[in-house]
Amino acid sequence: MNRRALLQGVAAAAGTGAALAVLGALSPAAAMPPRPALPRLDGKRALVLGAGIAGLVSALELHRAGAEVLVLEASPRLGGRSLTLRAGDVVREDGGPAQTVAFTRDSGLYFNAGPARIPHHHQGILGYCRELGVRLEVLVNENRAARIQDHALGQVKADLRGVVAELATKALGAGLLDAPVTDAERERLRAMLRNFGALDRQGRYRGTSRAGWAETPGMTEGRRREPLSLAALSDPSLWASADFAEGVNYAATMLAPVGGMDRIAAALAAALPPFAVRLTTPVTGIDPAQGIVRLADGRTEQGDIVIATLPAPILAALPGLSPERRDALAAVPQAPSAKLAIEAPRFWEWQGLYGGISWLPGKTVTQAWYPSHGFHAVRGVMVGAYIWEEEKVLRFAALPPEQRADLALGELATIHPELPDLARAPVSVAWNRMPWARAAWAEWPPGAREAALPRLTAPEGRLILAGDWLSALPGWQEGAVASAWAGLGKVGEQGLRP
Amino acid sequence: MNRRALLQGVAAAAGTGAALAVLGALSPAAAMPPRPALPRLDGKRALVLGAGIAGLVSALELHRAGAEVLVLEASPRLGGRSLTLRAGDVVREDGGPAQTVAFTRDSGLYFNAGPARIPHHHQGILGYCRELGVRLEVLVNENRAARIQDHALGQVKADLRGVVAELATKALGAGLLDAPVTDAERERLRAMLRNFGALDRQGRYRGTSRAGWAETPGMTEGRRREPLSLAALSDPSLWASADFAEGVNYAATMLAPVGGMDRIAAALAAALPPFAVRLTTPVTGIDPAQGIVRLADGRTEQGDIVIATLPAPILAALPGLSPERRDALAAVPQAPSAKLAIEAPRFWEWQGLYGGISWLPGKTVTQAWYPSHGFHAVRGVMVGAYIWEEEKVLRFAALPPEQRADLALGELATIHPELPDLARAPVSVAWNRMPWARAAWAEWPPGAREAALPRLTAPEGRLILAGDWLSALPGWQEGAVASAWAGLGKVGEQGLRP
Repeated sequence: MNRRALLQGVAAAAGTGAALAVLGALSPAAAMPPRPALPRLDGKRALVLGAGIAGLVSALELHRAGAEVLVLEASPRLGGRSLTLRAGDVVREDGGPAQTVAFTRDSGLYFNAGPARIPHHHQGILGYCRELGVRLEVLVNENRAARIQDHALGQVKADLRGVVAELATKALGAGLLDAPVTDAERERLRAMLRNFGALDRQGRYRGTSRAGWAETPGMTEGRRREPLSLAALSDPSLWASADFAEGVNYAATMLAPVGGMDRIAAALAAALPPFAVRLTTPVTGIDPAQGIVRLADGRTEQGDIVIATLPAPILAALPGLSPERRDALAAVPQAPSAKLAIEAPRFWEWQGLYGGISWLPGKTVTQAWYPSHGFHAVRGVMVGAYIWEEEKVLRFAALPPEQRADLALGELATIHPELPDLARAPVSVAWNRMPWARAAWAEWPPGAREAALPRLTAPEGRLILAGDWLSALPGWQEGAVASAWAGLGKVGEQGLRP
Repeated sequence: MNRRALLQGVAAAAGTGAALAVLGALSPAAAMPPRPALPRLDGKRALVLGAGIAGLVSALELHRAGAEVLVLEASPRLGGRSLTLRAGDVVREDGGPAQTVAFTRDSGLYFNAGPARIPHHHQGILGYCRELGVRLEVLVNENRAARIQDHALGQVKADLRGVVAELATKALGAGLLDAPVTDAERERLRAMLRNFGALDRQGRYRGTSRAGWAETPGMTEGRRREPLSLAALSDPSLWASADFAEGVNYAATMLAPVGGMDRIAAALAAALPPFAVRLTTPVTGIDPAQGIVRLADGRTEQGDIVIATLPAPILAALPGLSPERRDALAAVPQAPSAKLAIEAPRFWEWQGLYGGISWLPGKTVTQAWYPSHGFHAVRGVMVGAYIWEEEKVLRFAALPPEQRADLALGELATIHPELPDLARAPVSVAWNRMPWARAAWAEWPPGAREAALPRLTAPEGRLILAGDWLSALPGWQEGAVASAWAGLGKVGEQGLRP
């Protein structure tokens, strides 16, 4: 029986989900990391603290292994920082006024206030999307038409390639290679550099259509843009922004769930039994040895296994953990971030801005994101600010919502003068002020995470910790999945009541 | 009244389409090229030869100007080379057996056998999509996970940047700049090059996570890939493929109509009056002076204006044109291309291949495209060959359909060993053998088009020519739009019966 017959048989007998699973198993280059092999947990009870991605993935795998699962979530929503806001939703920051999202109702408009993109190689979270039927679409992280302040991103990228390749050609001509090359090899390298930088036959960079058109072609040939000077290109505010999408977690293809990032959390929760998730249920204390968790109303819950996926600063404040653990948790370095969204008619698409990110490196807003979906609808939601530099975030976060919007629209007007007249319904989220998050992500200095990990993950009774902040991918949902799988891998070792 | 109030008023009074038009007019950077200002044509009759994009755009604008429009199309379909194939469709090449498309029925699967992508700056064709409500989605032209033969595209791209930046750093150190720089300027350039190439502090390239992971990070840090050598990277079959998406017509964002490229032709035709398009109606002769067109059944049609948008080789053979015109048409240089599609379970997505293009430069198939939509469905249609090098196309085109499929699957197996077992329903189109196309596109040597244009577009009675092959964008639907607009611009000059 060949693979095709096998797959068709499986699909007919057990449905397409099963066929996909078989396909994954057959695919020799399947990139999906192996999931932990949990022991059977029938008759066991598992408590999971936190209904973010780490918590919901933990709960789903424990449920599949036969455990009775109860997820306790402090906030009134699933997903944790995977927060999608829609018309009528209310944002409540610590000490701030409530913001009610005023996007046009029934428009399908949404704002991913937390994570908004999934790299194509994050096969853990993508695997759950695949098996749970979460529809995905492309997220355009780099659009050449986007701006870096006064310039088209495509121009800065093309001109950088040009001037770098021209310099490299000079090095080649001066014989500065590490090892001697033959004339034929030198010619091959010269041809490579010409193509790399769009250089002329003499190895000079004189501009290229790759930089975008000053006048677009039609019945006449297009007119090229004048290249930027080497001095202009050496400005860090240009080059640091121009190549962000070369980064392994930012390069194409990037993906996003159709309809909002919280569709993943919703799909994970929907795969649990009814009433397995209890929202608006903060945990006020924990007894790791007995697997007992104290709730705000004074009641307790007990589990054979307790998986705690709360952010480190919140866990650090939870009574009942050992002092060593609390110290280690309190020492996890935290980073803030903030995002602001506005609704507007999609004027940006007339300028080729079908998705992508513009950079305003000198401004507080830092980035502006254009939607990668719903093209040519009248209205869209644009991310008008995405801020992660600490000083900028803290200043922005301290402002009341209206002043954040005024600040952002004033800055965005430098690249989109029409925006202040067209924008409505601003809403902003400063993660350092969000009650059950307190920060955007853990930001470990090199080596610090590996050094802290033993103290953070040491066995303590029935308690196991998980959360993206423990992983090598903090702030990414893939890190949450990896940490959940790592936590579940310890279930065989500890925490099982006889 | 500010813009917001104006837009909301227009939307309320005249609908969202009108609001979008106002928005376009208000947008200071609107990239949409101006459409021709046609005179009123009420009571006039216009014949349009060819129902491809140039013909349908011409017909729509003539209809809007008040003319009675009749489009005569030789084939049984709208769209010309903008051909989308679905289950049950039949492909008939000249002298070849008919191929019936055997994709799974009712699956929504399709194959764009002609143009398949629209650059974000092709605002002519995008403008029609916008105003006619053609839904668009992102087309992923570059996915770092795609392959160039044995390597990940992302690795080749990152390693090229690294070795080029390292060479450039040497030129900087050796003082090979055109103009002297201060120490501070040199440090700025050095920092720029470090970031550009992901170099170490000494300006050396030693690999980078940008190249993709040898082992993906999770609870442990990821392991980088070993960088390719300078000698390996100087192989033209690597670098020529690696940077194709830097080109102005290939760079992100690229778009495609949801459901198939022929949705644009369908929307244009739907905006014409009933019976304005007559399919399966080849034209056998033309009298430019009288505006008379002869049909295959012996009947004739007459128009005050005749816009002929047929490919140059077909027009060249049409009796009735002046010898000078026919010579000029016969001299338009033509290029062939071929594409092959197959249906398969989407194993490629387990490898991160959410859209994008793999390159097999040494093989006949040249490229393999993964679908940019419908992610995580069980089945997908993959373009298993896209061939444009003349010798390769002609060899491929000469094969019967089954042998084309065997050839393609054998070659594709070098990067996707699972494919031959999983693929079904191959279908191929060789444009040089398609009866009403005869070629894929015009391929003008530099300067040749401008030199030929006067003879090709000189007035001849009531006849006006249009077609992408006249434009600076041959093979692109945007070129068809530009040529149609240019042709319509002549309507005021000639061809109007008193």
